[in-house]
Amino acid sequence: MKDVKNYIEANKQRFLDELFELIRIPSISAEAEHKDDMVRCANKWKEYLLAAGADKAEVMPTTGNPVVYGEKIIGADLPTVLVYGHYDVMPVAPLELWNTQPFEPVVKDGHIWARGADDDKGQSFMHAKAFEFMVRTGQLPCNVKFMLEGEEEIGSGALYGFCEEHKEMLRADIILVSDTGMLAQDTPSITSGLRGLCYWDVEVTGADHDLHSGIYGGAVANPINILCKMIADLHDADGHITIPHFYDDVLVISDEERALMAQAPYDEERYKQSLSIKAVHGEKGFTTPERTGIRPCLDVCGIWGGHTGEGSKTVLPSKAYAKISTRLVANQDYQKVSRMFKEYFEAAAPDCVTVKVTPSHGGAAYVSPLDMPAYRAAEKAYTTTFGKRPIPTRSGGSIPIVAGFERILGIKSILMGFGLGSDAIHAPNENYPLFNFYKGIETIPYFYEYFCDILSGREA
Amino acid sequence: MKDVKNYIEANKQRFLDELFELIRIPSISAEAEHKDDMVRCANKWKEYLLAAGADKAEVMPTTGNPVVYGEKIIGADLPTVLVYGHYDVMPVAPLELWNTQPFEPVVKDGHIWARGADDDKGQSFMHAKAFEFMVRTGQLPCNVKFMLEGEEEIGSGALYGFCEEHKEMLRADIILVSDTGMLAQDTPSITSGLRGLCYWDVEVTGADHDLHSGIYGGAVANPINILCKMIADLHDADGHITIPHFYDDVLVISDEERALMAQAPYDEERYKQSLSIKAVHGEKGFTTPERTGIRPCLDVCGIWGGHTGEGSKTVLPSKAYAKISTRLVANQDYQKVSRMFKEYFEAAAPDCVTVKVTPSHGGAAYVSPLDMPAYRAAEKAYTTTFGKRPIPTRSGGSIPIVAGFERILGIKSILMGFGLGSDAIHAPNENYPLFNFYKGIETIPYFYEYFCDILSGREA
Repeated sequence: MKDVKNYIEANKQRFLDELFELIRIPSISAEAEHKDDMVRCANKWKEYLLAAGADKAEVMPTTGNPVVYGEKIIGADLPTVLVYGHYDVMPVAPLELWNTQPFEPVVKDGHIWARGADDDKGQSFMHAKAFEFMVRTGQLPCNVKFMLEGEEEIGSGALYGFCEEHKEMLRADIILVSDTGMLAQDTPSITSGLRGLCYWDVEVTGADHDLHSGIYGGAVANPINILCKMIADLHDADGHITIPHFYDDVLVISDEERALMAQAPYDEERYKQSLSIKAVHGEKGFTTPERTGIRPCLDVCGIWGGHTGEGSKTVLPSKAYAKISTRLVANQDYQKVSRMFKEYFEAAAPDCVTVKVTPSHGGAAYVSPLDMPAYRAAEKAYTTTFGKRPIPTRSGGSIPIVAGFERILGIKSILMGFGLGSDAIHAPNENYPLFNFYKGIETIPYFYEYFCDILSGREA
Repeated sequence: MKDVKNYIEANKQRFLDELFELIRIPSISAEAEHKDDMVRCANKWKEYLLAAGADKAEVMPTTGNPVVYGEKIIGADLPTVLVYGHYDVMPVAPLELWNTQPFEPVVKDGHIWARGADDDKGQSFMHAKAFEFMVRTGQLPCNVKFMLEGEEEIGSGALYGFCEEHKEMLRADIILVSDTGMLAQDTPSITSGLRGLCYWDVEVTGADHDLHSGIYGGAVANPINILCKMIADLHDADGHITIPHFYDDVLVISDEERALMAQAPYDEERYKQSLSIKAVHGEKGFTTPERTGIRPCLDVCGIWGGHTGEGSKTVLPSKAYAKISTRLVANQDYQKVSRMFKEYFEAAAPDCVTVKVTPSHGGAAYVSPLDMPAYRAAEKAYTTTFGKRPIPTRSGGSIPIVAGFERILGIKSILMGFGLGSDAIHAPNENYPLFNFYKGIETIPYFYEYFCDILSGREA
């Protein structure tokens, strides 16, 4: 890949300007008021794909937000890389914790600060620019397809059906995804596993109206207290999840593999410092990287009920709510877990309340074998640009659709993520270092080159 | 008390119109934006006291919202009744559950529907009109003082200091309060005991910023999960509160007194039906009336943290919050309990989070002896107007200042409450039956008459 560094240097301000236009569109998929922004953002992507060199690009309808599809086919006998990314972003609340406006990107201290700077506008846009470079310098070695969805942050609901419908159009040898992280700027890594996800909305109802906490307190169940007890009971004293049969299908990792994982650099003191915590907290018998990499977990993502405003209203509320999620590992079936939790949690309700569990979304875990061509090509690409062999890591995060791709399209994915743990994705002050942004654009073309070499048997 | 029924009949629409003017002022003490409404409401009361026959009335400054004070002194040797009430009201959220606008009172199905219809605008205004009747018909048998505060719903913070400062002005033989309920329209009752109150704001902090629940879930403490566990641990399996020494000072009620209490009409099936619950829930070994009357309790009045909006954001939040209150009984010291909980709950925090408890407000429990002159006078007044002897009951609610009056001013209170359990005070669709409103105005003058008779030895 000749001249990639020079090409980036010559175009770096334009790359940023273009990315910022994408970021400025508040494409929050979880909030209905942003429906029009989703379409605007999809159209902007279409424009960018055509400008970068795609033969065609379309905003295609789905049952939800549209998918942007684009392609450049240069030879029927050549390999095909399908780039997947998402143009939707997370909500921004609590707004008061942001140091800048979430949708007005700024560069400061060598980072881009904005919602979507990393996840996934910044990361997916690197692929558009790497593609542009290969096209304009005549170095594109294979066919390329792009698929950008607008519902990743709410579970990719419509994309499953879209894939079912467009299997032929989406045919490819590998799906290339940048929506994960790497260990550090001087420690490249490739995500070889992702956790699955299951998410539920929970509603606990006591009396049919809010009550005076003095007149009724002590005699009528308080749905907040009951919900707290029910949530507390989901873990035992050792941090194990207590839902019956929850661990039945969890893949047990061998001591050998655990020993290998333990070689990845990890400094617990620095980890704690980076979060300002005095102690980590999790399942007994597992290290921190194991707790997020190879073990499932259960978290309350949101809870509310009663008086949450100013002052001290004395109320015994009628209802309490929670949003509960689990992260799953291979080989847990997310649909089975979804049913299992609903049945267990509703049945666990004491007589004095009623509990309603509504499954929200979910997806399976994914594991990428270290000996597949795409993994080897990615490994070589990082080694070329970072001067260091990347470490395989298992991410605690989930990209449920990645397991879906394998199931529906029969195509494996390679997760070349360039984010850092400090990027604050899903949180206030999301950011993405310029170093990672440009290094990603530099590394991606080498992946194409090495991947085609390996598939054609030209590997050195 | 001659002609009280006729007087009410002749003036009933005016009484309502005047009350509605008070109700229309949204005097929510818990919300800072209503500061001006507090002053407007106090001035309206001043105007009403003067119109009803007070010699003087003033809006007096305090360290918080103003106090309205008014008086009519007709003889230095006569008894003095000090009427206490409050012109502030509770917040109205959740607004979507109201069938009418909370500050636009309407009469429907024989009830007044509005925030403050009962608590305490409706109930306190009965005293203004009973006073007006006695003055205008020349039947006022004693001196009358009025004191209306604007902070009852937030703990009467400023009134304690106001009482300390104005002991002489507030001298009286009894404090007359209508801020409680009665059993039913055909079952008059007098509240002979009130629970005390302690209220805290709790904040649990994990990491110093919101985290991605996938990347960190399972390894970093989730403050919502921890808060739920800590709240769950505040009760044992029998519904006892687990805070060490919490019950040390609780007055043990004799089996005889419990047997007497058990004679009050109470139908558990109707109770459950009125709340749409399948089962009551409380401390083992006590009946429902005992659980709210003679036993303390602990309730979470509000909880929030993480993503509480639309959609399914996967976040491991930095903070979780709760508003926790206890209702206390004789002889628990609310200041001691306040310190006890703060120390216990903060110390109970595991290493992985920090917990901050901020005491909000509190007050002691109060017991009114059944043989004091005011109780006997009230009993006789109800018997006259309802044709039935009222039952002494212990309310689960709290009017902390009532214990404060006894401590600071050395004056007992008599709690002639005319509200019903169905009035939905502190909740959406607060209401007050017209029957109770007018019956209160009718009953109050008899209390004055009988009280003066008893004090002067003229009792029949």
